[in-house]
Amino acid sequence: MKIQHLIKQHQLGLLFQQGSFGLEKESQRVYQDGSVVTTEHPKCFGNRSYHPYIQTDFAESQLELITPPNKKLEDTLRWLSAIHEVVLRSLPEDEFVFPLSMPAGLPADDLIKVAQLDNPEDVAYREHLVQSYGKNKQMVSGIHYNFQLAPELIQTLFKLQQEQKSAVDFQNNLYLKMAKNFLRYQWVLLYLLSATPTVDSNYFKAGSPLKAGEYVRSLRSSKYGYVNDPEVIVSFDSLEQYAESLEHWVKTGKLIAEKEFYSNVRLRGAKKARYLIQNGIKYLEFRLFDLNPFEQYGMNLADARFIHHFALLMIWLDENPDQQAVELGRSRLAEVALENPLAQTAYREEGEWLLNQLIEMLHIIGAEQSAVDFAQEKLAQFADPSLTLCARLVREIEQKGGYQKLGAELAKQYKANAFERFYALTAFDNMELSTQALMFDLIQQGISFEILDERDQFLRLQFGEHIEYVKNGNMTSHDSYISPLIMENKVVTKKVLEKAGFNVPQSQEFTSVEQAIASYSLFEKRSVVIKPKSTNYGLGITIFQQGVNNREDFAKAVEIAFREDKEIMVEDYLVGTEYRFFVLGDETLAVLLRVPANVVGDGIHTVAELVAQKNDHPLRGDGSRTPLKKIALGDIEQLQLKEQGLTIESIPAKDQIVQLRANSNISTGGDSIDMTDEMHPSYKQLAVGITKAMGAALCGVDLIIPDLKKPAQLELSSWGVIEANFNPMMMMHIFPYTGKSRRLTRNVIKMLFPEVK
Amino acid sequence: MKIQHLIKQHQLGLLFQQGSFGLEKESQRVYQDGSVVTTEHPKCFGNRSYHPYIQTDFAESQLELITPPNKKLEDTLRWLSAIHEVVLRSLPEDEFVFPLSMPAGLPADDLIKVAQLDNPEDVAYREHLVQSYGKNKQMVSGIHYNFQLAPELIQTLFKLQQEQKSAVDFQNNLYLKMAKNFLRYQWVLLYLLSATPTVDSNYFKAGSPLKAGEYVRSLRSSKYGYVNDPEVIVSFDSLEQYAESLEHWVKTGKLIAEKEFYSNVRLRGAKKARYLIQNGIKYLEFRLFDLNPFEQYGMNLADARFIHHFALLMIWLDENPDQQAVELGRSRLAEVALENPLAQTAYREEGEWLLNQLIEMLHIIGAEQSAVDFAQEKLAQFADPSLTLCARLVREIEQKGGYQKLGAELAKQYKANAFERFYALTAFDNMELSTQALMFDLIQQGISFEILDERDQFLRLQFGEHIEYVKNGNMTSHDSYISPLIMENKVVTKKVLEKAGFNVPQSQEFTSVEQAIASYSLFEKRSVVIKPKSTNYGLGITIFQQGVNNREDFAKAVEIAFREDKEIMVEDYLVGTEYRFFVLGDETLAVLLRVPANVVGDGIHTVAELVAQKNDHPLRGDGSRTPLKKIALGDIEQLQLKEQGLTIESIPAKDQIVQLRANSNISTGGDSIDMTDEMHPSYKQLAVGITKAMGAALCGVDLIIPDLKKPAQLELSSWGVIEANFNPMMMMHIFPYTGKSRRLTRNVIKMLFPEVK
Repeated sequence: MKIQHLIKQHQLGLLFQQGSFGLEKESQRVYQDGSVVTTEHPKCFGNRSYHPYIQTDFAESQLELITPPNKKLEDTLRWLSAIHEVVLRSLPEDEFVFPLSMPAGLPADDLIKVAQLDNPEDVAYREHLVQSYGKNKQMVSGIHYNFQLAPELIQTLFKLQQEQKSAVDFQNNLYLKMAKNFLRYQWVLLYLLSATPTVDSNYFKAGSPLKAGEYVRSLRSSKYGYVNDPEVIVSFDSLEQYAESLEHWVKTGKLIAEKEFYSNVRLRGAKKARYLIQNGIKYLEFRLFDLNPFEQYGMNLADARFIHHFALLMIWLDENPDQQAVELGRSRLAEVALENPLAQTAYREEGEWLLNQLIEMLHIIGAEQSAVDFAQEKLAQFADPSLTLCARLVREIEQKGGYQKLGAELAKQYKANAFERFYALTAFDNMELSTQALMFDLIQQGISFEILDERDQFLRLQFGEHIEYVKNGNMTSHDSYISPLIMENKVVTKKVLEKAGFNVPQSQEFTSVEQAIASYSLFEKRSVVIKPKSTNYGLGITIFQQGVNNREDFAKAVEIAFREDKEIMVEDYLVGTEYRFFVLGDETLAVLLRVPANVVGDGIHTVAELVAQKNDHPLRGDGSRTPLKKIALGDIEQLQLKEQGLTIESIPAKDQIVQLRANSNISTGGDSIDMTDEMHPSYKQLAVGITKAMGAALCGVDLIIPDLKKPAQLELSSWGVIEANFNPMMMMHIFPYTGKSRRLTRNVIKMLFPEVK
Repeated sequence: MKIQHLIKQHQLGLLFQQGSFGLEKESQRVYQDGSVVTTEHPKCFGNRSYHPYIQTDFAESQLELITPPNKKLEDTLRWLSAIHEVVLRSLPEDEFVFPLSMPAGLPADDLIKVAQLDNPEDVAYREHLVQSYGKNKQMVSGIHYNFQLAPELIQTLFKLQQEQKSAVDFQNNLYLKMAKNFLRYQWVLLYLLSATPTVDSNYFKAGSPLKAGEYVRSLRSSKYGYVNDPEVIVSFDSLEQYAESLEHWVKTGKLIAEKEFYSNVRLRGAKKARYLIQNGIKYLEFRLFDLNPFEQYGMNLADARFIHHFALLMIWLDENPDQQAVELGRSRLAEVALENPLAQTAYREEGEWLLNQLIEMLHIIGAEQSAVDFAQEKLAQFADPSLTLCARLVREIEQKGGYQKLGAELAKQYKANAFERFYALTAFDNMELSTQALMFDLIQQGISFEILDERDQFLRLQFGEHIEYVKNGNMTSHDSYISPLIMENKVVTKKVLEKAGFNVPQSQEFTSVEQAIASYSLFEKRSVVIKPKSTNYGLGITIFQQGVNNREDFAKAVEIAFREDKEIMVEDYLVGTEYRFFVLGDETLAVLLRVPANVVGDGIHTVAELVAQKNDHPLRGDGSRTPLKKIALGDIEQLQLKEQGLTIESIPAKDQIVQLRANSNISTGGDSIDMTDEMHPSYKQLAVGITKAMGAALCGVDLIIPDLKKPAQLELSSWGVIEANFNPMMMMHIFPYTGKSRRLTRNVIKMLFPEVK
């Protein structure tokens, strides 16, 4: 099967490079000294019986973080980053994620708790492993790399060849070839990427086999790592033989189940190997990789790409190894694993040959230049072993005085990094913050999701068979179609709310000055706002806060309004403070007061300095990638200062409140203040009623309230509804400037998936 | 209470003219000869136990059409027009609505069926009336005019006066004054608006009191009309006395119930007169008016305005009549009713004085000039009685040879008018046709609704306590918020449908020519469309309907597409015909085929003539105020002709199909062909499944289908979903060019109100 030939002839290089990628990364939770924790898997990560992203491997302390498959490797690494940020921000304060594969500060055997999974078979399996291999070996961590070729590639190649008649056989042979070549040449990847040169001596039951100061390339892939009994040999010659030999070892009791066969390549696609013959191998799982401690999340994109190309090379090569070659590859791996990482490998020549093959392939298939350059760098590491990851690691261990110390230091640094922009998911920061917050919670709670459209903030959520879609953080199936349409139309909103018995500011519209003035007596002594019907930057608006007291003032205001529009409104002015109520179902979950941009004097600093200080707040930034916006010092702010007799150079007295804006929008530097617990419950109930009148499941209600401490008086127009908003903002409640955070995204999830406990 | 003075002093003229208006119009259903029908109230008008718009009055044959109250008289008349159009289009072919108040061709007493209402009390009441008055008098029809002053006016006036302490008393006295003055001066309106000069002699049990050729002003308001026993005198001196005297007549058995008191003014606002004292009179009902047979719907806007101003005058006048004055007014009415309509009235002087008062008032309150002009016209009718409505009617009766003949002729003409634009509601023709169709059905079935926003097509529907909102004909609470958001995003739609297992055309996107060409083998021999990602007037699109057969053609198409956009798509081209499926819930209610604009030759006419003929079709027009659009003969059509070797002057052969457009849009003159019964059920089921996958209650699904007669093959991509549309068009299914009409608006109502049978 000349795959290489077909790809060249039919220019399939691009399709050849398409595929699907997933990563599973194990790591130990550790204390700040780097020693493995003895605590249980954190409860906040939900239930491991279904969690798609955050699992435990062997022990309670051993996290297994799983990305969904992605068509782009970049996306897989974004997921890995996001899952890590969720984990690091959710861990107890004194816990960290150890960045090295070999565990440090291992607890005594009886303190290592086997993962407490719901399924008793899963627990029994782990207990069996303890019997067979001891606990310590189970505590080693690695990264598993799942790779699937593009199905279209396999179809196309199948159509272009004649040798194979069955599409499934063709697919199986393709993956089997990749698997066998991988096993044959895996030592090359180990040489380049290994990172387990040493371990504590208490890792070994019978004392360390390493001399003092001795390092190897990979303990994890050596006989001291977590490997099967050498007797267990499984044939890769054909899928039939593979299934047969696996079944044999299970029958004879050498393996408790097929999954106990720890090959560095696993054939994936069915529960049992035999089923693969019919179903076809769907993808391969490569289990060779040590954690790269210098990467926050264990592997970087360049290495992940390199592994992808390496896997492609395994079917590109003309040779299709037999079982003997596979065994040769395995023994070579064992040998290289125990070589001195600072010395050249015994198989340098084969390694360089293989990488040259890789580079040639990259050229032919039209890979990006960066991939070629990177392969060249790797090639150079055969001549100079000090350039390998393992050599670098040895140097750092020496420098820090031990790998536990190094690991602890990196773990602390990585955790601190994850808190830098604690309100965001760094890898998905092109999306809206509210959607990022929702994704954070979904990952934490273990509800799987797919991003259907990043720019449109469109997610598909799934729990079991239950599917929900979410757009912009809280637009869901729970709201009816008509509710946002009602809210979009201010006239209709007013009519609906009024009919339902809620106070809306009454208004009358006029189309001539005379008409309006003739109605003066209607408004006499009433607090009203006179404004053009379509307001434009607030022009033409007059507010009679204390009531209109003479016809002349009224007439003047009417004329001013008519300068801006052909139709004007005289609307009741409600005296009080505006609050935003976030309502979901039968409950007001959050109440927020928005205060115009301001600073408070200290008698020492200038306004400009006070603004700069306030802008240092971690929540303040551009307002789209941060929950709050920095206060500007533009024309509008300076005019506002001027009205108070100030300039940006003035030094306000201690406790003097300096207004920098008249409007209270968060988007112009306003403060958000949580008032949920302060607000009188009668108003919260009103907001719920308004939401119901709108037919909405979720609504942002703006109420004007005279006194938030006193109960609402239903019959009086002392309060009123200003607006009802669909898709209400959540970030200002989740990360208010002052007051308690209200994690509304969790309520959205609970609304969508009440079955998730 | 110097109301006039307060209004002048405080310039309340505008507010004085505000109010609320409703009409109730009775009329007999008749056969084409004008004789009263003996059939039952049509079933299609739903149930009279709740119908808000279409009721029966005394007899099964006597329709009572009721408008909701409106703040603008124009709107009340629009409703009257709409309800009439619904009635006229719903009647059996041989039934009409008689435009005169006096019935013609009355059936024998035993054939006059008392209205068969659900409530036995209502039927018993009618049977009692038969005993008291006989059946014939009950068959007379009129228009009742409900008028409410603006509550703000009453509040304002109350605040401005000192005499009355209680707001309710003030309001009651105001309406009582209006009622009393109306009773005092009602003869003036009778003189100007009456239209019952004669009747068949068989109307009178004891032979006609009218001499041959004798006419009167108003039989209906005379003692020969439907009036109480003259003994029944009810006091209007105070509300207390009003209640007391009514209760007296009921107790003594002279009236079976308070409602049997047929005053030309009824005080409205409570079930019993006594309750009005506490609750307040809410509005007045004026019952004086004969049908104006020269108006399609019994009253025109100018007269309705005149009556409004007349009612205002009744509180504007300084005098507040006592009971004696009321009785004087009543006897004067009886007298004028029997005057010769062609002669001057005995009370001309009083009439002219009153209209001069009216004109003065109109000036002071700033009424429109047209109202003043109209009052002047009415004033002139006192000097020249031949100008009155009644005189005109007498002339027409003479000319036609009898009022039954005249009535029959007008009835037929009015019914024909109502069918002129049978797909619209003439009075609401500024709204979308689909909303008009929905409103038609709501009126017909008796579900009350309010137009919240005309321009936004926003309706509020109510049945009992059950409220629903509808926008654009079918956007409702039954659809979830997320469904239209999914459908709005083509990428997300595709992903959702694909995941749910439906065939969507597969596509690949490319960002460079090289990339695309490198994938050639992927598309070889496949039918594909190559297009820029954002299509712009169809530029840059190449269709390989028969499959791509060589790399060069493919490369050329790729280049063409890249001229239009930075990103191109290669998408599967599905061979077949596109059909639109209208799905609601579990059912495909309609399937439509859209055919590009075309004409069929007859061997005689030119293309231009054939187009003109086709454009004569009643459904064709501008396409927004009509269900179909006229075919244009612009550049695009002429180019299309040229490709067929034709010009607009060519004479196509008999049965030759001439294409005038390539695209099948209805909006460019295409034909709509109903295919619901022809379509294989398997495709209808698929469309339902697609709708469910979108989470939608209502959806327009566009499917490409190879053969509508054969079952869909699920595993093959022989068919596919092109688009799923929220708020799908309904008019093209309701009024297709050919095939059966599918009245989808009825299904929408059934979905919203399953409780309405």
